[in-house]
Amino acid sequence: MAIDLRYGPDVVDVVEKTTRFVREYVLPIEDRFGGDITAAGGDELRREMNAKARAEGILAPHAPVEFGGLGLDMSDRVPVFEAAGYSTFGPVALHIGAPDEGNVHMLAHIADDRQRELYLGPLATAEVRSGFAMTEPAPGAGADPNALRTQATKVDGGWKINGIKHLITGAEGAGFFIIMARTAGAPGDRGGATMFLAPADTPGIEVGRHVPTIDRSMIGGHCEVLFTDVFVPDEDVLGEVDEGYRYAQVRLGPARMTHVMRWLGAATRCHDVALDYVSRREGFGGRLGDLGMIQQMVADNEIDLAATRSLLVKACFELDQGSHASIETSIAKTFAAEAFCRVADRSMQMCGGLGVSDDLPIARLQRELRPFRVYDGPSEVHRWSIARRSIGRARKAAAAAEAGQA
Amino acid sequence: MAIDLRYGPDVVDVVEKTTRFVREYVLPIEDRFGGDITAAGGDELRREMNAKARAEGILAPHAPVEFGGLGLDMSDRVPVFEAAGYSTFGPVALHIGAPDEGNVHMLAHIADDRQRELYLGPLATAEVRSGFAMTEPAPGAGADPNALRTQATKVDGGWKINGIKHLITGAEGAGFFIIMARTAGAPGDRGGATMFLAPADTPGIEVGRHVPTIDRSMIGGHCEVLFTDVFVPDEDVLGEVDEGYRYAQVRLGPARMTHVMRWLGAATRCHDVALDYVSRREGFGGRLGDLGMIQQMVADNEIDLAATRSLLVKACFELDQGSHASIETSIAKTFAAEAFCRVADRSMQMCGGLGVSDDLPIARLQRELRPFRVYDGPSEVHRWSIARRSIGRARKAAAAAEAGQA
Amino acid sequence: MAIDLRYGPDVVDVVEKTTRFVREYVLPIEDRFGGDITAAGGDELRREMNAKARAEGILAPHAPVEFGGLGLDMSDRVPVFEAAGYSTFGPVALHIGAPDEGNVHMLAHIADDRQRELYLGPLATAEVRSGFAMTEPAPGAGADPNALRTQATKVDGGWKINGIKHLITGAEGAGFFIIMARTAGAPGDRGGATMFLAPADTPGIEVGRHVPTIDRSMIGGHCEVLFTDVFVPDEDVLGEVDEGYRYAQVRLGPARMTHVMRWLGAATRCHDVALDYVSRREGFGGRLGDLGMIQQMVADNEIDLAATRSLLVKACFELDQGSHASIETSIAKTFAAEAFCRVADRSMQMCGGLGVSDDLPIARLQRELRPFRVYDGPSEVHRWSIARRSIGRARKAAAAAEAGQA
Amino acid sequence: MAIDLRYGPDVVDVVEKTTRFVREYVLPIEDRFGGDITAAGGDELRREMNAKARAEGILAPHAPVEFGGLGLDMSDRVPVFEAAGYSTFGPVALHIGAPDEGNVHMLAHIADDRQRELYLGPLATAEVRSGFAMTEPAPGAGADPNALRTQATKVDGGWKINGIKHLITGAEGAGFFIIMARTAGAPGDRGGATMFLAPADTPGIEVGRHVPTIDRSMIGGHCEVLFTDVFVPDEDVLGEVDEGYRYAQVRLGPARMTHVMRWLGAATRCHDVALDYVSRREGFGGRLGDLGMIQQMVADNEIDLAATRSLLVKACFELDQGSHASIETSIAKTFAAEAFCRVADRSMQMCGGLGVSDDLPIARLQRELRPFRVYDGPSEVHRWSIARRSIGRARKAAAAAEAGQA
Repeated sequence: MAIDLRYGPDVVDVVEKTTRFVREYVLPIEDRFGGDITAAGGDELRREMNAKARAEGILAPHAPVEFGGLGLDMSDRVPVFEAAGYSTFGPVALHIGAPDEGNVHMLAHIADDRQRELYLGPLATAEVRSGFAMTEPAPGAGADPNALRTQATKVDGGWKINGIKHLITGAEGAGFFIIMARTAGAPGDRGGATMFLAPADTPGIEVGRHVPTIDRSMIGGHCEVLFTDVFVPDEDVLGEVDEGYRYAQVRLGPARMTHVMRWLGAATRCHDVALDYVSRREGFGGRLGDLGMIQQMVADNEIDLAATRSLLVKACFELDQGSHASIETSIAKTFAAEAFCRVADRSMQMCGGLGVSDDLPIARLQRELRPFRVYDGPSEVHRWSIARRSIGRARKAAAAAEAGQA
Repeated sequence: MAIDLRYGPDVVDVVEKTTRFVREYVLPIEDRFGGDITAAGGDELRREMNAKARAEGILAPHAPVEFGGLGLDMSDRVPVFEAAGYSTFGPVALHIGAPDEGNVHMLAHIADDRQRELYLGPLATAEVRSGFAMTEPAPGAGADPNALRTQATKVDGGWKINGIKHLITGAEGAGFFIIMARTAGAPGDRGGATMFLAPADTPGIEVGRHVPTIDRSMIGGHCEVLFTDVFVPDEDVLGEVDEGYRYAQVRLGPARMTHVMRWLGAATRCHDVALDYVSRREGFGGRLGDLGMIQQMVADNEIDLAATRSLLVKACFELDQGSHASIETSIAKTFAAEAFCRVADRSMQMCGGLGVSDDLPIARLQRELRPFRVYDGPSEVHRWSIARRSIGRARKAAAAAEAGQA
Repeated sequence: MAIDLRYGPDVVDVVEKTTRFVREYVLPIEDRFGGDITAAGGDELRREMNAKARAEGILAPHAPVEFGGLGLDMSDRVPVFEAAGYSTFGPVALHIGAPDEGNVHMLAHIADDRQRELYLGPLATAEVRSGFAMTEPAPGAGADPNALRTQATKVDGGWKINGIKHLITGAEGAGFFIIMARTAGAPGDRGGATMFLAPADTPGIEVGRHVPTIDRSMIGGHCEVLFTDVFVPDEDVLGEVDEGYRYAQVRLGPARMTHVMRWLGAATRCHDVALDYVSRREGFGGRLGDLGMIQQMVADNEIDLAATRSLLVKACFELDQGSHASIETSIAKTFAAEAFCRVADRSMQMCGGLGVSDDLPIARLQRELRPFRVYDGPSEVHRWSIARRSIGRARKAAAAAEAGQA
Repeated sequence: MAIDLRYGPDVVDVVEKTTRFVREYVLPIEDRFGGDITAAGGDELRREMNAKARAEGILAPHAPVEFGGLGLDMSDRVPVFEAAGYSTFGPVALHIGAPDEGNVHMLAHIADDRQRELYLGPLATAEVRSGFAMTEPAPGAGADPNALRTQATKVDGGWKINGIKHLITGAEGAGFFIIMARTAGAPGDRGGATMFLAPADTPGIEVGRHVPTIDRSMIGGHCEVLFTDVFVPDEDVLGEVDEGYRYAQVRLGPARMTHVMRWLGAATRCHDVALDYVSRREGFGGRLGDLGMIQQMVADNEIDLAATRSLLVKACFELDQGSHASIETSIAKTFAAEAFCRVADRSMQMCGGLGVSDDLPIARLQRELRPFRVYDGPSEVHRWSIARRSIGRARKAAAAAEAGQA
C-alpha cells in the first residue's frame, strides 16, 4: 500500500493498440463523415468496426472475461477509453459507448445466470446494442430521478409497464431495453422503482421521435420510447423489486466516469488540433504559438485536461475500492464537463476563422462535448448534491461540538 | 449639454415598428427554416422581406435620406438594430446586415457623386447586395491587416488587381465589391492600401468556395473570392489612392458596433427563451426559476446584456461625435462578443436537455453568436490594441513626470 | 431628446478641480498613512481637509445649493465622485463619503423644515458627521432587511427605541443618527418600519465595538450601536410613520451608486499603479508591458472599468428621471463590485512581488474594495432580486400569451 | 504495478497525530495572535512548538532518518503537510516551512558528508533555520532566473560573493544561507550559476529591509540580503561549480509542491470556517446553506480542493519516480494557487460582513494565500513554460509528419 499511478504492462499494451487503431482506422472515417455516425453507416459501420476491433483484441475491454472481454476495472479503463474517445466514433468501434458500456457493467453486477446468458452475453460480445430507459419528459424523471412516472403494475406472472421515456440513447436499433419503472410510491417519492429487461420487439414498445440533440456520434439517437401495456415476465425483473434506485446508483457512478474518459479523448483532440494550428500559423511577426495570449490558452487547456485526468483517476480508484463514490464522481463529472467546454472553446478561438468553420473538427467536437454539462445530471444538480453533503457534514460536526461542550 | 439617454419619439416609433415586424413576420420564417437563410430562400426571401419592410417604412433606416433611408446616426441605430437582430433574419429583412450596412456607411462617407449614384443608390435601396473584400487567407491579411497581399498595379486608365480574398461575407450573389488592395509597400507594412469598386461581373472576379462556417443567417455565405487581372478604371477608385487603411477605419468602428447591435438582439432572444422555460418548468419541488443557481444564471444574463448595451451606447455616441473611437469600439466589441457567448451558454444550460437540442433555437443561435469572438478582429487582437494604448499612455506619463523632475 | 453623454462645462470644472485637489493634496496624505484614516488623524484630519475643499469650492458638491453645495444631480456626481475616490481619503475630504452623502441625499428629499435646519444644515456643511442605523446582527436585518428587529414603541409625545445595530459606518464621532426601527409587524414582515432622527448624545445611545473590517478609510469605523430606551420626540420622526422601507429605497439606490463612483476611483488607481509598473519594469527580454499575458490583464482592466462606468451612467440617469431604478442600480452595483475586485487582483498580479507587499498601495486598496461585494447587499442578494424581476416578467408574459390564446 | 491511492498505515498515523497536534495545540496559538508569527513570539515560539512536535514524533517528517526524520517521500508528504498547513503556524511547528523544508531536501540530495554534518544535521533537527538566497531585485533574477546578477569571483581558496538578494524568506534569524551566484556568463544567460553555503555570521552578509508582504506566517520575514565581498571557501561550494541552475531544479519542483500541500491546508480551513457559518446562520427563510447560490460556492470550493489534491498527488508521484516533473509541478502549482484564492474568496463571500472582518480568520488567510500566485514563479511564467513545451511538442510532431511524408 503506497501511492502508485502506473498502469500495468497489459493495460499499456491495450492503450497502445487502441491508440493506433483509433488514429489510423477510426479517425479517418469520422472525419470523412463529419462525425455523423448515422451518415457514416450506423449499425452497418458499427459491425464493421467491431469486427476490426475484435481482431485487434480490443473489443469491449471492460466486459467480463467469460464473454471475451478483458475485464478491465474502472482504473484501467481510464487510459483505454480516453484513447478510444480521441475519435468520437472510437467508443462505438470498441463497443464501449453509452449506454451499452454501462449496461454491461450493470448486468455484470446484478443479472442472474439466465439473464447473463440471454442479455449480457449478446451485449458484451457486441451482437446487439441496448437501451437504458430511465429519463422521462417533463414532468417526469429528468434531472430529478424521484419524479419517476412510468408505472409497472403487477399482473399474473409478471408486470405491465406503461409510460413515456425521453432522450433514450441508442434506442433506435437496440436489441433490448433496461426499463426503470415505478412499482411503489408516487412521483416525487424517493424509492419504489424496479429495473426490468425487455427485448425491443416486445409488444407495446415503440421507439418514437429522435430528439434532435446537437451531438451526432451516438448510434441509435436520443429517442422518445413509449411503453404501452408492455408485459415483462417475473424472470425478467433485474435484481429485486423496488430496488431500482439502488441499482441505478451501481450503474450511475461508473457510467458517469466512462463518459468522462471518452470525452476526455475528444477534448484532447480539440487541443491537439489547435496546437498544430498555432505551432504553424504565422501572424503578428511570428508564429501564433509565440504570442502570450495564445500561450495562456494552451496552458489553460493543459491544466484543464490534467486536472480532469487526475480527478478521474481518483474517482475510479474509489469505485474500484467498492465505494459508491458519489461525491468523487460528481466532482470529477462536473469539473470535466465544464473543462471540456473550456478546452473546446479555447481551441476554437486559437484557430480563428478556421476554428468556427467545419474545415476543422473543433466546431463539431464542441457540439459533442457541450451536452455533457447536461447529460448524466446537469452541473447544477451535481453541485447541489456535493454541497448538501458538505453542509450536512458541517452541521453534524457543529452539533457534535455543541453536544461535547454540554 | 447634460447626460441624456432617451431616444426621440421618431426613433421609438421605428423601434416599435421593427419589433412588431420582426416578431410577427420575420421570426416565424426564421424558426420554420431553423435559421438557415439559404434553405429559407436566399435572395428570393430577402426581396420579399425587403418589400414588406419598405412598406412598413423601416427598410435601411441608416441609409441617407436622399436614398429613402431615415439617416439614423449610430446612437439611434442601437435600439433599432437590436430589435431587428432579435431574429437572425431580421437584419436581412431590414437590409441592415453585414456587409451591406457597413458598405452603405462607408460609401455615404467617401464615394463621389458618380459612385453614389452607381453604387450607393442601388445598395441603399436594397436593389443589390455587395461584398467587402478585405480579409485574405494565410499568410495574408487576416486578424493582422498589415499583412495585405492582394496587389493592385497601375495600368493605363486604371488598375489591375490580383489576389485571393477569404471569408468574404455575402459574396455569392453580390452586385459589386469594395476591394482593398495594396498599391504601395509590401506585406507587413502599415499603409499603402487602396479601396476599389468593381461590379461583380467584372472579368476576372470569381467567387470560390463557401467557407463552411457554423453560422447560417448571412446571405451569400462567407466565400473565397479570386481576383485575376481584374481591371478597375480610375473612376472606380474609392477615395484617394493609398488611403485604404484610413478608410477601413471609417468603416470598421461603425460596422463593428452594428454587429454588436444585431447580435445583442439574438443574445436577448436566447435569454428570453430560457426565461420562458425556467418560469414554467417544474422540478425539485417548485419551478426551476425559483432555484438559486438558475436565478444566478438569469441575473448574470441580465448583467451581461445591460453592460453590453451601455458600452454600445457609449461607443456609438463617441462615433457620432466624430471620433474614431478605436478604444471604445474595441472595448464594446470584445465585451459584447464574450458576453453573448456567456448568455447563450447559460440560456442553453437553463433549458437542460431541450437546450442542447434543436427543439429550441438556442443551440443554433449559439452557432450564430460564437464566431463574433473571431469576426471583426479576434478578442485577442482587440485586447492587444486596447493594452498598447493604455501602456503607451502610461509610458508617456512616466516620461513626462521624469522630464518634469529633471 | 437625443443621446448625449457630455458633461456641462461647470461639471467638467468641478472634476478638474477635484482631480487636482485629490492628487496633489489628499493622495500624499493617504499614502503617508498607508490609507488608515484613523492613524492619519481621524476627524481632525477630516476638518482640515474639509476646510481646504471648501476653499476650492468643491466641498459637498451634491448638497443642496441653500446649504452651500452645488446641487449636482446623480449623473453629474459620477465623474466628480470618481475623481474624489481616486484617493481613499478623497470622499472624506470632499465630505461625500458614506454614510453622510446618502444621509444628505435622504434628508434633502424627506426632512421637514425644522429637520432641515437642525440636521441637514450642519451635515451638509460638514459641521457634523452622521450615522445610518439600519443593519443589525444576526438574526436581525442584515442582507435581508425584512428581518428588522429594533423596536420603536409609541409613548407619550414620541417613541422609545430598543435594539442593537451592527456595522454602522461612521458611528464613532457621529453627531446624529438616522435610526430605522420597527413600528408595526414582526421580524420577517415586509413593512412597518419608521425612520427616526436622534442626536448622538441622546440618553440610551451607546456606540459599542468596532467591527474589525478589513477596510481602513471610513471615518468613525463600522460599529455596533446599542439603543436602550432611547426616547425620540414625534417631531424627530423622519417622514411618515411606517414608511421606513419606502424611504430606505429613496436612500438605497443613490447611495449604492455613489459607492460605485467612489470605488471606481480607487479601482482606477490600482490599474494606474500597475500600468506604471509594467510600462517600466523589464524582464523576459523586454518590458513587462510588451508581454501578451500582461496585455490581456491590462485590457481586461480597461474593459471592466469602462463597463462599470457605462452601467453607472445609465443607472444614475434613471435615478435622475425619478425612477427607483432598482434593477439598474442592482446591476451596476453587482457588476462594479466584482469588477473592482478583478481589477485590483489583476493589478496586484501584474506587479509581482511588489504587488503583494505594502510597498505599493494595491494590497490595501484591495482590502478597501473587497467588502463592497458584501456591503450594500451581497452580490447574491442583488442577483436574486434581479432574477426575480426577470422571471416574474416572463411569467406574466406567458400568462398573457395563454390568456390571449384562450 | 496497478493504480493505488492509499497511504500506508504509518503515514495515516503521522497524519492523525499531525491533525490532532495542529488543531488542539497550534491553531489556538495562531488564532490568539491573528496569525502573526512575529507577534506570537517568533523563534522563541518556534522552538517551543518544535519541542512539542518532537515529543509527538512528528518533527521534520521529511528529513532523512539518520537525522531523526521519517524520511517521507513526496507522495507521503502530501497528507501530512496538508494537515500541518491547516494552521498557518503548523509548518513552523513541524519545521516543514519554506525555505527550511526545501533546503533540507536539497542538501539531502547534493551535500557532501562534511556539509551534511555541518549544515544539514543542524537544519534537519531544527537546531537552526536557513535561507535560500536566489531571487534578486529588478533588474536581477526575479520571475526570470536567467537574469541572475549576484557575482561570485574565484579567489585563492574560495570565492568572493557580491550582490543583492530580495524577498529572501526567513533571512532574519537564519543560521546559514544557500546562495546562488553567477560564476560564468552574464545576466540573461542560461547557465553559469553556482550554489554556495555560508553561515549567516560570515563577514559581509547583511540582512536588510523586510519587504512588507501581506502574509504574516513565515518566520524571519521576506528580506533583502546584501552580500559584500563575502568569502566562501571551496569546501562550502554545494555540488559542482556552474551547476547551480540544475541544482535549483532539484529544489524547485519539490519545494513548489510542498508549498501547495501547506497552503492546501489553509485553504481547506477557509472552506471549513465558511461551511460552519452557512450551516448555522439563518436568513431568507432558512439556513444560508439551503440557498442555491451558497451551495454553488460550497460545491465549487469542494471541486477546487479536490482537483488541487489530485494534481498534487500526480506531480509528487512523478517526482518520486525520479522525474523533474516540470510540467506536472507547474500545472499543479498554477492550478492550486489560483484555486486557493478562489476558495478563500468564496469562503469570505459566504460569511458576509463577518467574512470581510477580522472576527473570522478568512481575511487574513486570504492574505497568506494570495502571494502564492506570485511566489515560486507567477502563474504567467508557469503558463508560458507549460505552453512552450506543448507547442514545442506539436512542432516536432508536425516536422516528423512532414519528414515521414517526404
